[in-house]
Amino acid sequence: MKTRAAVALEAGKPLEIMEVNLEGPKAGEVLVEIKATGICHTDEFTLSGADPEGIFPSILGHEGAGIVLEVGEGVTTLKPGDHVIPLYTPECRECYSCLSGKTNLCTAIRNTQGQGLMPDGTTRFSMLDGTPIYHYMGCSTFAQHTVMPEIALAKVREDAPFDKICYIGCGVTTGIGAVINTAGVEIGSTAAVFGLGGIGLNVIQGLRMAGADMIIGVDLNDDKAEMAKKFGMTHFVNPSKVDDVKAEIIKLTQSEKDQIGGVDYSFDATGNVQVMRDALECSHRGWGVSVIIGVAPAGAEISTRPFQLVTGRIWKGTAFGGAKGRTDVPKFVDWYMDGKIEIDPMITHTMPLEDINTAFDLMHSGESIRSVVIY
Amino acid sequence: MKTRAAVALEAGKPLEIMEVNLEGPKAGEVLVEIKATGICHTDEFTLSGADPEGIFPSILGHEGAGIVLEVGEGVTTLKPGDHVIPLYTPECRECYSCLSGKTNLCTAIRNTQGQGLMPDGTTRFSMLDGTPIYHYMGCSTFAQHTVMPEIALAKVREDAPFDKICYIGCGVTTGIGAVINTAGVEIGSTAAVFGLGGIGLNVIQGLRMAGADMIIGVDLNDDKAEMAKKFGMTHFVNPSKVDDVKAEIIKLTQSEKDQIGGVDYSFDATGNVQVMRDALECSHRGWGVSVIIGVAPAGAEISTRPFQLVTGRIWKGTAFGGAKGRTDVPKFVDWYMDGKIEIDPMITHTMPLEDINTAFDLMHSGESIRSVVIY
Repeated sequence: MKTRAAVALEAGKPLEIMEVNLEGPKAGEVLVEIKATGICHTDEFTLSGADPEGIFPSILGHEGAGIVLEVGEGVTTLKPGDHVIPLYTPECRECYSCLSGKTNLCTAIRNTQGQGLMPDGTTRFSMLDGTPIYHYMGCSTFAQHTVMPEIALAKVREDAPFDKICYIGCGVTTGIGAVINTAGVEIGSTAAVFGLGGIGLNVIQGLRMAGADMIIGVDLNDDKAEMAKKFGMTHFVNPSKVDDVKAEIIKLTQSEKDQIGGVDYSFDATGNVQVMRDALECSHRGWGVSVIIGVAPAGAEISTRPFQLVTGRIWKGTAFGGAKGRTDVPKFVDWYMDGKIEIDPMITHTMPLEDINTAFDLMHSGESIRSVVIY
Repeated sequence: MKTRAAVALEAGKPLEIMEVNLEGPKAGEVLVEIKATGICHTDEFTLSGADPEGIFPSILGHEGAGIVLEVGEGVTTLKPGDHVIPLYTPECRECYSCLSGKTNLCTAIRNTQGQGLMPDGTTRFSMLDGTPIYHYMGCSTFAQHTVMPEIALAKVREDAPFDKICYIGCGVTTGIGAVINTAGVEIGSTAAVFGLGGIGLNVIQGLRMAGADMIIGVDLNDDKAEMAKKFGMTHFVNPSKVDDVKAEIIKLTQSEKDQIGGVDYSFDATGNVQVMRDALECSHRGWGVSVIIGVAPAGAEISTRPFQLVTGRIWKGTAFGGAKGRTDVPKFVDWYMDGKIEIDPMITHTMPLEDINTAFDLMHSGESIRSVVIY
């Protein structure tokens, strides 16, 4: 079949909207009509050329929602008409990692996915002249139709709006999951969130859900504070307006009872390695847990004095918020439908596929929290 | 009173055995007759001058065992004749950290202890000419008698030999505690231990107690392998004899089922920051936990790519093996007496106080695992 897609022909160039060929689903694969897709910083990271693993030409996009149109041989858990969210982190429930119960990082199709290929080592997309177009993060939601492995699709309820729940395919789950899966925040905790963009806001609402007492937001842009407060932020620090952001956070958390201070949990949602260090070092001596969410530039390294860890701080990271996609994503959709989590205010812009490059412009200018393409 | 002590007069010089003044215990303090003390790398670190917080003149030593001779006003949990192990990490059971239940890093006397003082801001030791001599890690077990806060003494059973259980005051508890308290190793785990000295061997026996399936020891010195095997090591890697120690460890743990490989738990017992990085990076994608035990040189920093954490590895550290001294140390003594943990083979040398400098020589030459001074 043919479908419309925004194709990344080369690094650093705008996407080009074009008609492309799409082969039908092979064994274990599913043809999905994408109804909406968010545009995430990770798409931008790859399109910019900064991603050392970026491959072109490719169809980017990994934060979508859609409807199953056709299933390949052997597919048993999905049928045409099912509503689905694509998973860039699949959940095969059979590999050593899935069976460990200790991680969401399924390895079943890791190698081919990293090479922009379907599990059989080929692509389903091609240019009209036959040139293969690579898949992206196993999803390629910047195409109106895509083919994905069955294990990389979460079946969700049918009354949930595609143009909102697509955000659960990445940002919402990453932010909230970092709090509830990776950090395991308890009621009454104190926390700091560095970076109040699309991920940071979701960390904040995750902290609110988890019952944190003090939720300190940190951002260089004062304008971010207003929205963050709506999601549960209780205190705001602009690092450019204080001598030392760590000292400021520690001061906020000190009390007569606790003269040491520091947050129980901290989260980096910036991708800046110096910020990751600050996040660790403002966490509480003895038990502070710091979670890295942001994606750092290629080659960048985090560092600290080992004393920070020897005195009880724990340094962790999270991918897709530690969520097991097929199991957890439907729950997130329920929570959205039940009003437990908010998505609508974060989707600041919507547009047709033709205008997708505008979404990148809005991201660069800092005007958007999330832009969503509605097909 | 007067007592005999090995005094560190200045950095980089041998200890001097001399008679010193010792004031009796003030309120909340206890006079202890030290019966035996181990000599640990941390004593050496401070004596060498490398410890930026080293203060002189001082009486070093923090790995002792002895008998209570006299108690100060208000002391209720100890009485003359009680057998005790000094704790450089006290357990007041009243400070914010103790009450958190999440850390062993009691803060009750942290500030004065770091300055070589008793909690009232003075020293009990002095030269015969009246010059104050500083305490060390709140213990100063290189004196035949010492005064310590009640909260820094663990009461232990009276049938346990001082010249063995003194090692529980630091090395044994640090190594085994890193496994059972900090890492929380489960039965069937795989693990790597970097550095097979006095701490590393105790990590290994901790792993054996915890039921680890594969215990990989790593040391530049092949001669260390034999003893480590006796404590439970199942595999040995000499980094100088392989291309890449991380790759070697990963290879050892790979199987048909788990083609990714990496150890579930790794421990640095070297204090070398590059080794700390290797230890993290050879741990398993998705869930590997790496614990820093060694003390790094002043100013040294650990680093890694944040990707290592984002893909599920956890970086931690431990002080005194996460043990709450007054609660846990008596248990360790029971375990020794019950034959659950071994200490005797690790105490390779004993000597009277007069020969204590020999213990440092034996440490430098790598001949000893642990030297113990018997008073």
